[in-house]
Amino acid sequence: MKAMGFERILGGVCAPQGFLAAGVACGIKGDGRPDLAMVKSERTASVAGIFTTNALPAAPVEVTAERVRAGSAGAVVVSSGNANAMSGERGLADALAMAEAVESALGLAEGQALVCSTGPIGVQMPMDKVLAGISQAAGELSPGGNTDAAKAIMTTDTYPKELAVEMEIAGRVVRMGAMAKGAGMIHPNMATMISLITTDMPLDHETMQQWLSQAGEWSFNRISVDGCQSTNDTVLMMANGAAFPQGYAMTREEAELFFRALCWLTANLAMALVKDGEGATKLLRIVVNGARDDAEAVVIAEAIAVSDLVKCSFFGGAPNWGRIAAAAGSAGVPLDPDSLDIYVGEYKLVSGGIPLECDHDDLVRMLARDEAEITVDLGLGSGSAFYLTTDLSTEYVEINAEFS
Amino acid sequence: MKAMGFERILGGVCAPQGFLAAGVACGIKGDGRPDLAMVKSERTASVAGIFTTNALPAAPVEVTAERVRAGSAGAVVVSSGNANAMSGERGLADALAMAEAVESALGLAEGQALVCSTGPIGVQMPMDKVLAGISQAAGELSPGGNTDAAKAIMTTDTYPKELAVEMEIAGRVVRMGAMAKGAGMIHPNMATMISLITTDMPLDHETMQQWLSQAGEWSFNRISVDGCQSTNDTVLMMANGAAFPQGYAMTREEAELFFRALCWLTANLAMALVKDGEGATKLLRIVVNGARDDAEAVVIAEAIAVSDLVKCSFFGGAPNWGRIAAAAGSAGVPLDPDSLDIYVGEYKLVSGGIPLECDHDDLVRMLARDEAEITVDLGLGSGSAFYLTTDLSTEYVEINAEFS
Repeated sequence: MKAMGFERILGGVCAPQGFLAAGVACGIKGDGRPDLAMVKSERTASVAGIFTTNALPAAPVEVTAERVRAGSAGAVVVSSGNANAMSGERGLADALAMAEAVESALGLAEGQALVCSTGPIGVQMPMDKVLAGISQAAGELSPGGNTDAAKAIMTTDTYPKELAVEMEIAGRVVRMGAMAKGAGMIHPNMATMISLITTDMPLDHETMQQWLSQAGEWSFNRISVDGCQSTNDTVLMMANGAAFPQGYAMTREEAELFFRALCWLTANLAMALVKDGEGATKLLRIVVNGARDDAEAVVIAEAIAVSDLVKCSFFGGAPNWGRIAAAAGSAGVPLDPDSLDIYVGEYKLVSGGIPLECDHDDLVRMLARDEAEITVDLGLGSGSAFYLTTDLSTEYVEINAEFS
Repeated sequence: MKAMGFERILGGVCAPQGFLAAGVACGIKGDGRPDLAMVKSERTASVAGIFTTNALPAAPVEVTAERVRAGSAGAVVVSSGNANAMSGERGLADALAMAEAVESALGLAEGQALVCSTGPIGVQMPMDKVLAGISQAAGELSPGGNTDAAKAIMTTDTYPKELAVEMEIAGRVVRMGAMAKGAGMIHPNMATMISLITTDMPLDHETMQQWLSQAGEWSFNRISVDGCQSTNDTVLMMANGAAFPQGYAMTREEAELFFRALCWLTANLAMALVKDGEGATKLLRIVVNGARDDAEAVVIAEAIAVSDLVKCSFFGGAPNWGRIAAAAGSAGVPLDPDSLDIYVGEYKLVSGGIPLECDHDDLVRMLARDEAEITVDLGLGSGSAFYLTTDLSTEYVEINAEFS
């Protein structure tokens, strides 16, 4: 990574200067697990965000999206265990009350707190518990609270997801940190995922929004666990400028380095979300090359990534290239069978539309690993895309069957 | 059904006059089960067809689609146990050779035999066995061979699917019969399903194509088992006019009766395909009302029908309306949460976007039945649509995991 100009460090969202975090258990979840995270910037931060495109967004998404458009914020509160979605007027009032409670506890001006929630849909927020949790978290904010915060945003995740990187810009150390949660309902725009990225680089709202949107397109918008899109998905980014208190305008090279680090961060968070997908036993990386353009490549990669039949076959450890071909063909994009090649890992299984002989035992051995790459070369042009997904396991069904 | 003007009868594809059928085991499947069906019309029949829209159609789809456009045929052969898909030039030659063998065995003119195949993708057809099977089936054709034929087209289906109806038109008895197979890769346009409909009514190719396409739109194109579209899906219809050897032009009322019977037949075949879907424990009927138009209603109904999370929750027997709402919201159609109502069976779970209290035990009792209806009323207009799907079970994953 040194070669890329940045280096991985510890510290999650608190790695950049001037960010404090806390995670507490306030009783939303009912099983005593942490369920409320708070991250505060000591200086007012520029903010950017990406939000679910679901036509029924949750109340906190509505509140936070509007505040992000205003461009700045001082803190974020994330509750887990209740999505505050499909909760009507009262849900909207609750989301606003959460933001106000944060502003009041931290001495922020009105509109300076952002709010996210994740969990089951359609249950009213237990506001007495949430408000007590906000008050407690405000008292526990610390520069070492990042992992507590990362744990408090988890729902069915099996481990907290944090990442941070460090780079040098104009002789100063600049850092970027992040936390994320995912697990189920993972699909583009944006999945039931919540992520917060922090940096001490000074960035204006417009530039950061543009970079975050592009980095999100290449990461969070290219992952699917179950093809299901949630009502709450949110990626937020806060830039407090603490590394350059007087401000600084990056050169083009510096901006490229920073953007590359941001893309590395979001790509690795996205991969972590998929790896920890509900019931997942394998990470599948779908690569489509040779499409007429990138847009067609994305459509085909997504069609393969959401195919239950493809995903089941990888769970079983016996890749079925016929299902991969059928999924590619179902994407609504004209294809030429005679120019179609399909690889699984290093094995070429189809050449010019014709199946090749290959050593079944070798293939099965390769698929015993916990990652697999499917490459489809359409032979039609130079468009390409990738997509990350998981296999579909009996455990996924059991987790989501909620047997009564 | 009497009230609808037609009546259900036995006899499947042989119910209409002048159709003979046979089903034989020729060794394609390798386990001794029947795997080759033949249906012959004693008179040249008008034909119509609907075919997969997959961009990688199987060889028999290419051959048969072209022949259906020519408008007439005398026989159909259907092999199961090998899809003859992704089989290149040789596959095309094999599909043509199958048709030629049928023509030669039955004394038909060139181009008068149609061919369908279903089964695993990417394996070359064992032509020696197939040609021997065609010869054997031609010798066994009989007016009572319908169930043998229906059995011989099965792949992972657990029972053969046949239906027939009878009606009176201009003082004569007119019949329509059908067989179908489905099970996995069931999704519109057309799923891994093959269906043949026969009738002794005289119909011209153009009228029949129009009626079949519309009936298919309301049946086979509104079912999903796993959201996966196959390379081989085919619905064929043959009208041999045996009920009116001198021909007959239906009145508008008679045409409406005939079309209604056709729609009843295709709707019931489609429902049978879903009920017998791989691993299915429940038939789910999704109804969307109150959309701006029917097209938007279809898109939303399909989004709910393919949601793994919705399907898993019905497998568990605890309906999660939040997942239904999230799926509806993910369809790319603008919605108004305040006008959204959701019902499961007779229970209204959401009213104006707000969850209602309901007796959980009553609901769970209702969902112990093997059918459930989800109704979503968007409150935006008068568009409506329905969709049939199944729950997603651990057994579906096991069937499709092909453990190695």
